[in-house]
Amino acid sequence: MSLSPLIQQLVTSLRCLPGVGPKSAQRMAFHLLERDREAAMELSQALQQAAENVAHCERCHTLSEAKICALCSSSQRDESTLCVLESPMDVMAIEQTSGFSGLYYVLGGHLSPIDGIGPEDLGIDELLARVRSGEVKEMILATNPTVEGEATAHYIAQQLKGTDVKVTRIAHGVPVGGELEYVDGGTLAHALAGRRLL
Amino acid sequence: MSLSPLIQQLVTSLRCLPGVGPKSAQRMAFHLLERDREAAMELSQALQQAAENVAHCERCHTLSEAKICALCSSSQRDESTLCVLESPMDVMAIEQTSGFSGLYYVLGGHLSPIDGIGPEDLGIDELLARVRSGEVKEMILATNPTVEGEATAHYIAQQLKGTDVKVTRIAHGVPVGGELEYVDGGTLAHALAGRRLL
Ligand SMILES: [Zn+2]
Ligand SMILES: [Zn+2]
Repeated sequence: MSLSPLIQQLVTSLRCLPGVGPKSAQRMAFHLLERDREAAMELSQALQQAAENVAHCERCHTLSEAKICALCSSSQRDESTLCVLESPMDVMAIEQTSGFSGLYYVLGGHLSPIDGIGPEDLGIDELLARVRSGEVKEMILATNPTVEGEATAHYIAQQLKGTDVKVTRIAHGVPVGGELEYVDGGTLAHALAGRRLL
Repeated sequence: MSLSPLIQQLVTSLRCLPGVGPKSAQRMAFHLLERDREAAMELSQALQQAAENVAHCERCHTLSEAKICALCSSSQRDESTLCVLESPMDVMAIEQTSGFSGLYYVLGGHLSPIDGIGPEDLGIDELLARVRSGEVKEMILATNPTVEGEATAHYIAQQLKGTDVKVTRIAHGVPVGGELEYVDGGTLAHALAGRRLL
């Protein structure tokens, strides 16, 4: 049996959510329509509002609807330590360990010559200018422990050779080949604490 | 760290989806905003369209934006066999077994005197009138195999005592105490085939 067109469209759209297969998408659609239309309308609004208004922080490039995000504008954070990450999800993962009080810089990916992604696409020039301006004493490279993440970290470290900035790499407590956002908080906290000088 | 208000609102709204905990809601929100805003807007539209336009079929009471759903208007279905279910999810569950070619009637719940839900709230009068009008030769009671589902099935069967209608109950191949929508297709098909006369 085919679902009615609007229900089918909803099921199809729900499948764009990570981790949602055909069965769960259908269950979600029927749940919302049969038991909680108010939640469906709220979710519709929240998606539209966020998709239209959330951009990237001008300073750290994480997701934020404010030009400068709450982390970058906080007076509680240690501006002399900058943690460089691949994605906004990684910021949340590190924040949830409560083991880091510095600031972040989100690259939005990693170097990938094959896909034509170079330093300029990741805001690395802006990052280097900020670090060279002197406020940063230590830069922690916390890109993913993948081949591309390692290469990106080494590229950035290379550019800062000869400066006074202490460049460190997050410890390999995190499983090699894995993705930072899926690592548990304890392992992440451990990896941060065990960071080594590059 | 607190997420920015619009992202937090999105995470909160996503948690209304069945089976979505705080971690997955956050992952979904970041995924949509960082990697697929088009999907976010499409899902927003699909939710609004469905929540505003999908109602219940006037004949079988399943979810449908058409006044009469595709199943009820199909000429391919056997009108003489009517399967009575608690919810639209149950219709989909039975349909996916491909083991049933009759029509459906959705009660939208079960009898529950404690919650003040009586026969009139479940459209049972309308169901009985339809069955008594003569087109239905067999009525399969496929309410959930719970105490309330059994009670509802027995109430309906009782009302049709003395008529020519064959009233059957879906076989107890389905786990007692469980919910129909979570039962696998094979078990459901077996349960349908093994239905017995009440
Ligand atoms: Zn920021
Ligand atoms: Zn119908």
